[in-house]
Amino acid sequence: MTWTTLRHSVDDGVLTVTLDRPDQLNAFTPVMAGELERTFTEVNDNDDVRAIVVTGAGDKAFCAGMDLSADGNVFGLDESRTPTLADMADLSSPDIARVRDTGGRVTLAIRACRKPVIAAINGAAVGIGATMTLAMDARLMSTNARFGLVFGRLGITPEAVSTWFLPRLVGIPRALDLLYSADILDAEAALETGLATELHRPDELLKRARELADRWTLGRSPVSTALIRHMTYRHTALENPEDAHRVESLAMFYTSTGDGSEGVRAFREKRSPDFTRRASAMPPFYDEWAGSR
Amino acid sequence: MTWTTLRHSVDDGVLTVTLDRPDQLNAFTPVMAGELERTFTEVNDNDDVRAIVVTGAGDKAFCAGMDLSADGNVFGLDESRTPTLADMADLSSPDIARVRDTGGRVTLAIRACRKPVIAAINGAAVGIGATMTLAMDARLMSTNARFGLVFGRLGITPEAVSTWFLPRLVGIPRALDLLYSADILDAEAALETGLATELHRPDELLKRARELADRWTLGRSPVSTALIRHMTYRHTALENPEDAHRVESLAMFYTSTGDGSEGVRAFREKRSPDFTRRASAMPPFYDEWAGSR
Amino acid sequence: MTWTTLRHSVDDGVLTVTLDRPDQLNAFTPVMAGELERTFTEVNDNDDVRAIVVTGAGDKAFCAGMDLSADGNVFGLDESRTPTLADMADLSSPDIARVRDTGGRVTLAIRACRKPVIAAINGAAVGIGATMTLAMDARLMSTNARFGLVFGRLGITPEAVSTWFLPRLVGIPRALDLLYSADILDAEAALETGLATELHRPDELLKRARELADRWTLGRSPVSTALIRHMTYRHTALENPEDAHRVESLAMFYTSTGDGSEGVRAFREKRSPDFTRRASAMPPFYDEWAGSR
Repeated sequence: MTWTTLRHSVDDGVLTVTLDRPDQLNAFTPVMAGELERTFTEVNDNDDVRAIVVTGAGDKAFCAGMDLSADGNVFGLDESRTPTLADMADLSSPDIARVRDTGGRVTLAIRACRKPVIAAINGAAVGIGATMTLAMDARLMSTNARFGLVFGRLGITPEAVSTWFLPRLVGIPRALDLLYSADILDAEAALETGLATELHRPDELLKRARELADRWTLGRSPVSTALIRHMTYRHTALENPEDAHRVESLAMFYTSTGDGSEGVRAFREKRSPDFTRRASAMPPFYDEWAGSR
Repeated sequence: MTWTTLRHSVDDGVLTVTLDRPDQLNAFTPVMAGELERTFTEVNDNDDVRAIVVTGAGDKAFCAGMDLSADGNVFGLDESRTPTLADMADLSSPDIARVRDTGGRVTLAIRACRKPVIAAINGAAVGIGATMTLAMDARLMSTNARFGLVFGRLGITPEAVSTWFLPRLVGIPRALDLLYSADILDAEAALETGLATELHRPDELLKRARELADRWTLGRSPVSTALIRHMTYRHTALENPEDAHRVESLAMFYTSTGDGSEGVRAFREKRSPDFTRRASAMPPFYDEWAGSR
Repeated sequence: MTWTTLRHSVDDGVLTVTLDRPDQLNAFTPVMAGELERTFTEVNDNDDVRAIVVTGAGDKAFCAGMDLSADGNVFGLDESRTPTLADMADLSSPDIARVRDTGGRVTLAIRACRKPVIAAINGAAVGIGATMTLAMDARLMSTNARFGLVFGRLGITPEAVSTWFLPRLVGIPRALDLLYSADILDAEAALETGLATELHRPDELLKRARELADRWTLGRSPVSTALIRHMTYRHTALENPEDAHRVESLAMFYTSTGDGSEGVRAFREKRSPDFTRRASAMPPFYDEWAGSR
C-alpha cells in the first residue's frame, strides 16, 4: 500500500508524519483519515519508532479542516436512514462504518497508540485540523499558527472525540467559550487558553518537537512509556481509584520484574540502563485491560 | 401560573431571569427553587429564546443563600425517617420529593437546558446563591460581588451538585480549600481562583452578559448549540472516549445533513447562514442519550 | 503494637505523622506502608484528631522513595506467576496481597480518611515519596524541597494511584510531561506546575501546615468536614451528576437535622456553634455509599 495524503520519515527512532496536501492547505479527506488511522495503529508494532511528531507540509497550514471542495455530501454520510445510539453499540459493525465520524477514528487510534505523539502545528489548524491535535500529548505551535474550533459557525458540531478531550485540557468554561464562539485564535491566545503547550519560531518548530521527543523517550523502557501513556489517559477519566490501583499494581509487577530490575541495577551501578522489552509485546494484562473499555 | 420570586424579560432572544426578592437579598426559598426549575425546563420549548442571563434584583445581592428567616426546619426536610441511598434510586419518586436537595433540582434543570446560561453576579452570592451559578456556562461578576461557599461554617454540606461541578471548575485542591475554609471571597479572589470568568464594573455587568450571549448564539444553529452544550458537560465526566465518539458521530450526522448543509453552502457563498432547525425539536438520538444518564 | 518507621504526635487535635527513618532519607519500606495504612485507618475512629499533617524526619528528605538497599526483589513481588486483571477483582483476597502495589494501599487509605490530610514536604520527595502526597489535600513545600516522579528512569511505572490523581491535579499534558521526562523538580517548579499548593521557608513549614489545619477544621462539624472531603474526591470522578445529587441530598438531610440546626441557631444568635456529632459515627448512608465503590 502506498500513501497518498501523508509523508513518513523515521530519523533515529522518531517518526515524523507530514500531512501532505499543501496545495489544499493539507485539508482532511476520508482517505487521509484512513491513512492516519493506519499509521497510528501500525506504529505500535514497529519497535524502531519511539515517538511520533505530526506536522503539515508547507508553511501556511497544519490542516485547514475537512476538504469542502467536493460537491454534495461533503461529510460522506449515508443519509438514507437515521441511526440511533443503540445502532452504534458495536463500533466495528460495517452497518455503521459510514456513520462513524472519521476524525474520531483517527483520535481513537491516537488514543490507543503506545508511543508519545507530539503535534508540531506549523500554520492554520482548523476544524478537524485542530481537534485531531487534542488527542496528542503536546501541542507545539509556531508563532504564526492559528487554531480554530469553528464547527458552530457551520451549523455542525465538534468531533474527533474533542468534546471528551477539550474540557479536560482547558476546563469546562473555556471549552464552552471556544465552541460557542467558534473563533480562530492566534498562537498567543492558544497558549494562554492552554491549547498550545509551547510556542516556537517557525524555523525552530520541528527541531523543538524533536528535542521533546528525545527528552521523553531516550533511555526509557518503551513498555513503561506505553503503560504511562495509557494509564494517564484512562485513569484521568476513571470513576473508581481502586480500578486504577488494580492496573497500576499489575503494571508495576510486570515492569519491576523486567526492565525495572535492569533499571534499579543501572541506578545502583551509576550507568545507563539497557532496557530490552519492546512495545510490540505488551504485558498479558494489557489486552484484558484495553478490551475492557 | 404567575411568578412570585422571579422576574422574566426577553429582549431579542435573550431571556433575563432576575431573582426578585430584593428586600430579602434575593434569598432562596423552596418556591424560588420550583420557579427556577420550571424556568430552565420550559425555556427548552421556547424557540424565541437563544440564551439566558441570570441576575439578582437590586445592587446588593445576587442571592444571599437559603432564606433562614423561617422558624424551625429551615431546610424543609421531613425528619420522620432516615432515607438511604437505595431510596434515592428513582429521583421522580414522590416518596423522596422532600428529601431531595432543592438546589440540586435547580442545577440539574440548568444542566439539562438546551441554551447557554450566563450568571451575571451583581452582588453577594452565598450558599445556594453561589452554588447555583457553578452549573452555568460563565460567571460574570461585578467588581463589588462576593462569593461564599459557607456551608462548613453552618455545620452543613455543599449542595446543588456543587461537589460535582466545583472540582471540575477549580481543581481538587482549590475546591477542598474553598469548602473547608468556607470563607467569603471578594470578586478579585473569585477571579484568581477560577470561579469568576470575567469581572466588570457594576453598571456594565448586564451589558457585558448580553454581549457574551450574543457572541455565543447570534448566527448559530440552536440545535448545534444545544448539542455542543450537552456534549461538553456530559463528556467531560465520561469514562470511555468511545462513548463520546458514538454521540459525536450521531450529532455530526444529524447536523451535517440539516443546518450543516446550509452552513457549508453559506460559507462557500460568503454569506450569513440561515439555519432553520429549532432546539424545541432535538434529534432522535437525543432522548435516547439523555435518558441513558 | 509499636511503630518502627513512623512517629506520631497529637497537639490540640492535629496529628503530625513523621516518616522517621532519617538515616535512610525516610525511604519507604513495606513496613512503612503497613504503618501508614494503619495510621490513616485508625484515625477515623479517633475523635481527638481533626486533621493530619505528614512530614519527614530531618532536614534533607521528606521520603527518598522505595528503599532500594535490600538485595534482590526490591519491590517485594511474588514472581512465581503472572497475575491478570481478573485476579485483582477482590482487593481483599490474600492471593493478590503480594501483587498489590504497597503505595496504592497507602493512598487508598488516605482517600478513605475522614479528616483533612496536609503534606508538609520538608525535603526531597521522590518516587513513592512524591506520589503518596498526591492523595493529600494540600502540598506545602519548603523552599528546599524537591519533587521527582522518576519511575520512567528506572524502567518502572507510576503507582500509589498517581495515574488517577496526577492528571486531575495538573492536567493531562503536564502529567504526561512529568512522567515521561521523569525529572526532579525544585520547589519553584513544583509550585508553577501546580504540584505544590504553597511554598514556605524551611523553618516555617510545620507552623504553616498547622495554621492551615486549624483554618480548615477549627469550629467545624467533623461529620460535615468528612462528608465534604469524600464528596469532593468522589464526585470529581463521577460520570453522572444525578448520583452526586443523591448523595448531596442525603448529606444535607443528615447534617441539617443535626449539627446544621445548631449551626443555624448559632449564626442567628451571633455566637460560635457547638457541634456535637463525631466522625467516628458517620451517617447511615455513608457505608452504603462507600461500599458502592
